[in-house]
Amino acid sequence: MKVSEIGEFGLIDLLSGMAYAARDEKQAAWKQLILGIGDDAAAWREDGSIQLATADLLIEDVHFSLDFTPWEDLGWRAMAANLSDIAAMGGLPRYAIISLALPGSTEVDDVVSLYRGMLGLAGKHGTAIAGGDMSGSEKVVINITILGSTGGRDRHIMTRSAARPGDKIAVTGCLGASGGGLEMLKKKLKLNAAAKAALGEAFLRPAPRVAEGQLLAGLGVKAAIDISDGLISDLGHICQMSRVSARLEAEKIPVHPAVRENFGDSALKMALTGGEDYELLFTAPEEVIINVKEKAACPVTVIGEITAAGKEETLLVDGKGSRIDLPGKGWEHFSK
Amino acid sequence: MKVSEIGEFGLIDLLSGMAYAARDEKQAAWKQLILGIGDDAAAWREDGSIQLATADLLIEDVHFSLDFTPWEDLGWRAMAANLSDIAAMGGLPRYAIISLALPGSTEVDDVVSLYRGMLGLAGKHGTAIAGGDMSGSEKVVINITILGSTGGRDRHIMTRSAARPGDKIAVTGCLGASGGGLEMLKKKLKLNAAAKAALGEAFLRPAPRVAEGQLLAGLGVKAAIDISDGLISDLGHICQMSRVSARLEAEKIPVHPAVRENFGDSALKMALTGGEDYELLFTAPEEVIINVKEKAACPVTVIGEITAAGKEETLLVDGKGSRIDLPGKGWEHFSK
Repeated sequence: MKVSEIGEFGLIDLLSGMAYAARDEKQAAWKQLILGIGDDAAAWREDGSIQLATADLLIEDVHFSLDFTPWEDLGWRAMAANLSDIAAMGGLPRYAIISLALPGSTEVDDVVSLYRGMLGLAGKHGTAIAGGDMSGSEKVVINITILGSTGGRDRHIMTRSAARPGDKIAVTGCLGASGGGLEMLKKKLKLNAAAKAALGEAFLRPAPRVAEGQLLAGLGVKAAIDISDGLISDLGHICQMSRVSARLEAEKIPVHPAVRENFGDSALKMALTGGEDYELLFTAPEEVIINVKEKAACPVTVIGEITAAGKEETLLVDGKGSRIDLPGKGWEHFSK
Repeated sequence: MKVSEIGEFGLIDLLSGMAYAARDEKQAAWKQLILGIGDDAAAWREDGSIQLATADLLIEDVHFSLDFTPWEDLGWRAMAANLSDIAAMGGLPRYAIISLALPGSTEVDDVVSLYRGMLGLAGKHGTAIAGGDMSGSEKVVINITILGSTGGRDRHIMTRSAARPGDKIAVTGCLGASGGGLEMLKKKLKLNAAAKAALGEAFLRPAPRVAEGQLLAGLGVKAAIDISDGLISDLGHICQMSRVSARLEAEKIPVHPAVRENFGDSALKMALTGGEDYELLFTAPEEVIINVKEKAACPVTVIGEITAAGKEETLLVDGKGSRIDLPGKGWEHFSK
């Protein structure tokens, strides 16, 4: 069987099963492991705290295009994707290890810009670039691994597997702007200055919700994920790992205003399936979410609720409760 | 200026300078950082121990060829390269984070073999595969990050910068066998069964010196590196970071017997510049090395000594003390 037939998530399941089968509880590393392959980050106990690690591999012309992504923004975005995974667990990002492969014909100034972007965002979150690897290649390849911690013995981590029927589903910020920004840059759309600035920034300079992740964990939220593949897809990951279903109310989805204005009928679809918004999607009992809404510095919107596992993973309904067909499932690698 | 003009090590210097300039001692991550970019692994203080992290990015047809590397061996080798970096610091490897990019046409069975190779070697060293990333790409790309620790408050780490004039230079095991194995596989050389087995294993199934690294650190060795770029090149890294020079005695280099037998006049060159032997190169006062030789389970050979920084980084001499020209400097990315 080919990788394209089993699919990205089928392959991850298979490999995580192999890693699980190799588990040896007599070995300290396995004994201290809390979360292995399958969540936003790996987690293990280390002395007084929980350590977190997450990685993202970005390949030119697969994950990004240098045609419309300036080098400094590329560095920023690559760092954002990883910081966002630590944010989704409620952790503090601490160290970044960068592997970089480049064609020999790359301008040194461009590599300096790339690093400036990575260091700029890392610095905002107290994260030190501590090491890495460098080599030659035909295409630009960037792998960032971030090590984080919960910063204390008493802090829990948020996971994909802790959603419970009856939980409200909520999301930080607005959705669809990163997908809108990508569309605008790729197709060279002429939008008004405000929309251009908002969508460009959402795509090129996303702001990972690190402080919000820690706030959520601190206020008792147990289940969270960051929106990197798209709302429907990432909510699907929570449903699968928690063995529950979800009911989403289309009218409550916080579609970014610039997306609503400029993409008409596609706006809702962009908010539901556009990836890389790096907002946090989380579920919790209503009283916890009321508390979060009061204390968070960013908008927090309730968009649906978790139900017992049903025939469908996610049911999307309109204002009258009638079913709406899902507009596809978001990003999956290897899919044809 | 192009990356090919500044070179791999020039670029690393430039980027580590940027990371250093971004240092902010008010931030805990920077305050606790012991070693940043430039050594085998990054190191920082965390509660009771020193944490280590290292990464290697491997790209098909740049770092490896599937023409003569079976998938399971590829997994083993990729894991070995990283475990070896932790070994060079005297650390215990604990968790591996794997990023993998594959063409959709890859056979699932091949990916299973790749993982079997990685899990096989990781398991021998108590290392758990704890997470990662998966995506599509034209070529196979593997990034492994390994997190390790010194396993105790009182343990020091070995670095590239601790060599001192008067130190003896020593190496574990034999050299050149991995380079010989690569040559054999690439050129389909017909060697006798024993040589074929030894060189094939050295290239396809290298054994990182994890236990030896811990022994060295425990016995007071302060300066070490693993031989991944080649002896001359890796000794050069120690000389640069320690601001010293080195005097190597050609006759003492432990050239692997199968290399000596089969590669004639090229044998010494292979031992001096062939990379990926994953032996440990270290320096220490003579009495420390005598103690290491007594206690190590593998051969340990003194091959020269550290001198005050001179005109030449490394001086290679024959049995009469006469200078021999160096046969090139080992692997450097971006060089033409």
